[in-house]
Amino acid sequence: MFHRIGIFGKYNGIACWDTIDRLLQHLISSDKTVLLDSASCADFPHQRYGVDVVEREELGKQIDIAIVVGGDGTFLDVARSIVDYDVPILGINLGRLGFLTDISPKEMLNIIDEVMQDQYAGEERNLIRVQIEKDNVIEFDQLALNDVVIHKTESPRMIEFETCVDGRFLNSQRSDGMIISTPTGSTAYALSAGGPLLDPRLDVFCLVSINPHTMSTRPFVLPGSSVVTIRPHENCNGLAQIICDGQLTHHIGVNHKATITRHKKFIKMLHPAGHDHFELLRAKLRWGDKL
Amino acid sequence: MFHRIGIFGKYNGIACWDTIDRLLQHLISSDKTVLLDSASCADFPHQRYGVDVVEREELGKQIDIAIVVGGDGTFLDVARSIVDYDVPILGINLGRLGFLTDISPKEMLNIIDEVMQDQYAGEERNLIRVQIEKDNVIEFDQLALNDVVIHKTESPRMIEFETCVDGRFLNSQRSDGMIISTPTGSTAYALSAGGPLLDPRLDVFCLVSINPHTMSTRPFVLPGSSVVTIRPHENCNGLAQIICDGQLTHHIGVNHKATITRHKKFIKMLHPAGHDHFELLRAKLRWGDKL
Amino acid sequence: MFHRIGIFGKYNGIACWDTIDRLLQHLISSDKTVLLDSASCADFPHQRYGVDVVEREELGKQIDIAIVVGGDGTFLDVARSIVDYDVPILGINLGRLGFLTDISPKEMLNIIDEVMQDQYAGEERNLIRVQIEKDNVIEFDQLALNDVVIHKTESPRMIEFETCVDGRFLNSQRSDGMIISTPTGSTAYALSAGGPLLDPRLDVFCLVSINPHTMSTRPFVLPGSSVVTIRPHENCNGLAQIICDGQLTHHIGVNHKATITRHKKFIKMLHPAGHDHFELLRAKLRWGDKL
Amino acid sequence: MFHRIGIFGKYNGIACWDTIDRLLQHLISSDKTVLLDSASCADFPHQRYGVDVVEREELGKQIDIAIVVGGDGTFLDVARSIVDYDVPILGINLGRLGFLTDISPKEMLNIIDEVMQDQYAGEERNLIRVQIEKDNVIEFDQLALNDVVIHKTESPRMIEFETCVDGRFLNSQRSDGMIISTPTGSTAYALSAGGPLLDPRLDVFCLVSINPHTMSTRPFVLPGSSVVTIRPHENCNGLAQIICDGQLTHHIGVNHKATITRHKKFIKMLHPAGHDHFELLRAKLRWGDKL
Repeated sequence: MFHRIGIFGKYNGIACWDTIDRLLQHLISSDKTVLLDSASCADFPHQRYGVDVVEREELGKQIDIAIVVGGDGTFLDVARSIVDYDVPILGINLGRLGFLTDISPKEMLNIIDEVMQDQYAGEERNLIRVQIEKDNVIEFDQLALNDVVIHKTESPRMIEFETCVDGRFLNSQRSDGMIISTPTGSTAYALSAGGPLLDPRLDVFCLVSINPHTMSTRPFVLPGSSVVTIRPHENCNGLAQIICDGQLTHHIGVNHKATITRHKKFIKMLHPAGHDHFELLRAKLRWGDKL
Repeated sequence: MFHRIGIFGKYNGIACWDTIDRLLQHLISSDKTVLLDSASCADFPHQRYGVDVVEREELGKQIDIAIVVGGDGTFLDVARSIVDYDVPILGINLGRLGFLTDISPKEMLNIIDEVMQDQYAGEERNLIRVQIEKDNVIEFDQLALNDVVIHKTESPRMIEFETCVDGRFLNSQRSDGMIISTPTGSTAYALSAGGPLLDPRLDVFCLVSINPHTMSTRPFVLPGSSVVTIRPHENCNGLAQIICDGQLTHHIGVNHKATITRHKKFIKMLHPAGHDHFELLRAKLRWGDKL
Repeated sequence: MFHRIGIFGKYNGIACWDTIDRLLQHLISSDKTVLLDSASCADFPHQRYGVDVVEREELGKQIDIAIVVGGDGTFLDVARSIVDYDVPILGINLGRLGFLTDISPKEMLNIIDEVMQDQYAGEERNLIRVQIEKDNVIEFDQLALNDVVIHKTESPRMIEFETCVDGRFLNSQRSDGMIISTPTGSTAYALSAGGPLLDPRLDVFCLVSINPHTMSTRPFVLPGSSVVTIRPHENCNGLAQIICDGQLTHHIGVNHKATITRHKKFIKMLHPAGHDHFELLRAKLRWGDKL
Repeated sequence: MFHRIGIFGKYNGIACWDTIDRLLQHLISSDKTVLLDSASCADFPHQRYGVDVVEREELGKQIDIAIVVGGDGTFLDVARSIVDYDVPILGINLGRLGFLTDISPKEMLNIIDEVMQDQYAGEERNLIRVQIEKDNVIEFDQLALNDVVIHKTESPRMIEFETCVDGRFLNSQRSDGMIISTPTGSTAYALSAGGPLLDPRLDVFCLVSINPHTMSTRPFVLPGSSVVTIRPHENCNGLAQIICDGQLTHHIGVNHKATITRHKKFIKMLHPAGHDHFELLRAKLRWGDKL
């Protein structure tokens, strides 16, 4: 049973306040304790409802469930910040149906009632942790639910880097970059770059090179327990950057090393009872229906 | 320790008799018991060495280890026939280095000596079992180490079929066919059809559509525990066939159902100590070396 | 001005008789001479209208314009048979909008009236001629508007063949086959096999390998004036076949040579005035609209 | 007959002076007039040979032929700067065989002797001109021999832009960018991004989207006479840039328009007599040899 509910909106997203308003009224009338995320709802007229606005870092500790109102980008951001507190998460899409925010505002109240009665489909998804070090100092230590990307910066030139898996040399490549994707991220940027779809039940990663110079480079699916290290080459043309979920960025150069591992915690996603991932795939990818 | 050694050659492969000859002499001088596969070595002058030629079905029960002399095709055939007897397998390539037959005749005696002293790298690979039924009668029940393929027959027209995973509808497609590949098969036909590389440690399958009509169709990686069923459509243009490892074929039509599951046993493959799968990938796919 | 109009339907296509009926009445009332194609309309009650049914080979000589009622397959068949008589062609789709049959039955009468008043967008498309010879004897000599395909027959094994362009060796390949596509065919089978879109104004061909074993094989766009020759290899696994427009088939083996050239005549396709090929692409490929 | 020869090296490329030295001595002893490019050879000890160093802009007007000593990058740079003077160009590779610099230093003296006797294979290649305007002011007006690329800048977000061809709307896309490639550029960046090979005899362009969000986006081959315009969208995430041959860059935003046309002049490339482009393709792409 979920008693303490955290609500997260889109950053500066006045567009979601109407939905949050409806949600709040409904939850309060159901005798739930509701807390609002300060990063997104600081300007929301919360006094009207007598609910508290809490700092993001604190919020994870105080809630039983996180409800995200926004798009997949908002969901990614929230998931990374609450995963360590074992808080399950559920997403309401504001615009188009998302792979993560798969509940429409229209149906949200009914679905949330069901979820509150423990009627839902839950699943656990892996996350990636990336640590970037230089001269034995950790400069960057972040999570990603979709993907970690090494990419050239503004330079038109390709970058060169070397990839090892579990300490064994995999390959050197010249390319625009490489995506290390989770199953969750396999429907995001990795898909545009030619990666395969990965069943969300799998604990794997996929390495997808971006416009590789060598034509026999192919997406490579690895166990989630793998340790992947990436080192830019000395002859690296221009600088490179590491990007988490398209949201967090860090520049790297020849003396940096990025280490990618599975995060110790999985994120628990809640869906309406009877949720079918294949249905979502067919809708989003416009696959043909049953004949 | 391996005492009873089965040797398997290429079907009708006189080309491999010289290698088998050297192997036999070496093993006999090491006081091993050697048995020859009747399907491939019936005409080999085995009397000269005092070794027995045994039927394939019996051979699996009588040996501790299988040594295959041939190409990857021979290896696939032998692996399928011995997997149920928990016999490990090792492959010597006659021509080019193969993904499965990764020991050259030149180095084979040294490596086999090491293997006999329990110095080797062992790994387990999953296999696929495919059962084809019509009107509740099983017509075909076979294994595949690389892949099971549904493909149009001679007709120039695409076929249409429906795929379900664990009883849930995945999609309908019009295409030349679809490959269900193991990690082992991900470097074979699936690679030509655009599939990803799958780490051989993974227990997964990959569905790779062959020239699909719908352009958003993508390779899909599934847990090895999945049950995949394929049913040709009523409006199927022309007949379809199911092919195991490019070697075993069965025609199917509108009332057939093919059920694909992981085989209950895994095959144990032996490699030289220090074997590195990535090295094999780099050599076969001509990836760049370390800079 | 078009006076003598030939009407072609789908082979055995009773489904198109209602549309042909409306078309006939309209054209007769406009004082046009209408002739029906015997291959598709032999059983149509033509006596009721006092129009003649003429053999396909004769029909091309007697008409000023061909109207095809059916799908893209019907259109391909008719185009090949009338191209040598400089007869322009126009296609009415019975089912879904086609790339070739781009006029709906609903709008056809208005559009045909406009066409009869010389208000239309005309364009010329190249065709391929393929000649297959063995021991200096021509066994097969046919045209294709979409594509000529060399493909393995029922065998699961890839075929091997050698391709020359203008007498110069291009490459040897092991694959399931290769498509030689016109711009018209670039939206058909070649698209499923990974080929590019070719602007229909271009006089080029594209070679698209089907599941090639060598991963650096890529679609290759050649001048329409090229002479492409294909020879199956001696070590060809199984037999191969040559297929024109998915409709005409001929088996070939190691001593055959297939010579592909542009046909001497182009086919003139008529579209409604203001026709926009890009609009058709966006609709069929579901590209995004203007933002 | 070529009398006045311009020699161009790699920018700041001391590595090429030994080759230029041999070249100079050979040409002077053959009574040719040699001029050196100031941009690359300013520090070369030209006084020793009594040859002049001339500004790049002037050099094109004074020579009959350009010899480039360097890599493909150097060749692109020189070709763009001399194309308007109808000067043929020939490339000597310093490192690996290039698609453009296809003569090795080892064989260069013999080949140049042959070229000076009018024994060579000449071919003409198209170039792209790109003009970028904002508020009706031209900000950028440059050429490209390989490709013009619109690409996101450092932002991890995709960009959105609209493409028109000959004034007709083609599509809107969300992607990392798009390559407009000549046949010459079809073996360069466009190849990494999934574009087809284009025969260098063709006067066409190819649009190749880079990691497009819409999965049915495909490379599109257009007549060289096409006028392509690109406009970033208002909702463009982050800024975009236009890049010519990976060498010249200009930032663009929502009010910019880039117009791409074929340059009025073609560049004449000289190769050794008997040059075979297919041989180069097979060598560079590691295609299989004749069986």
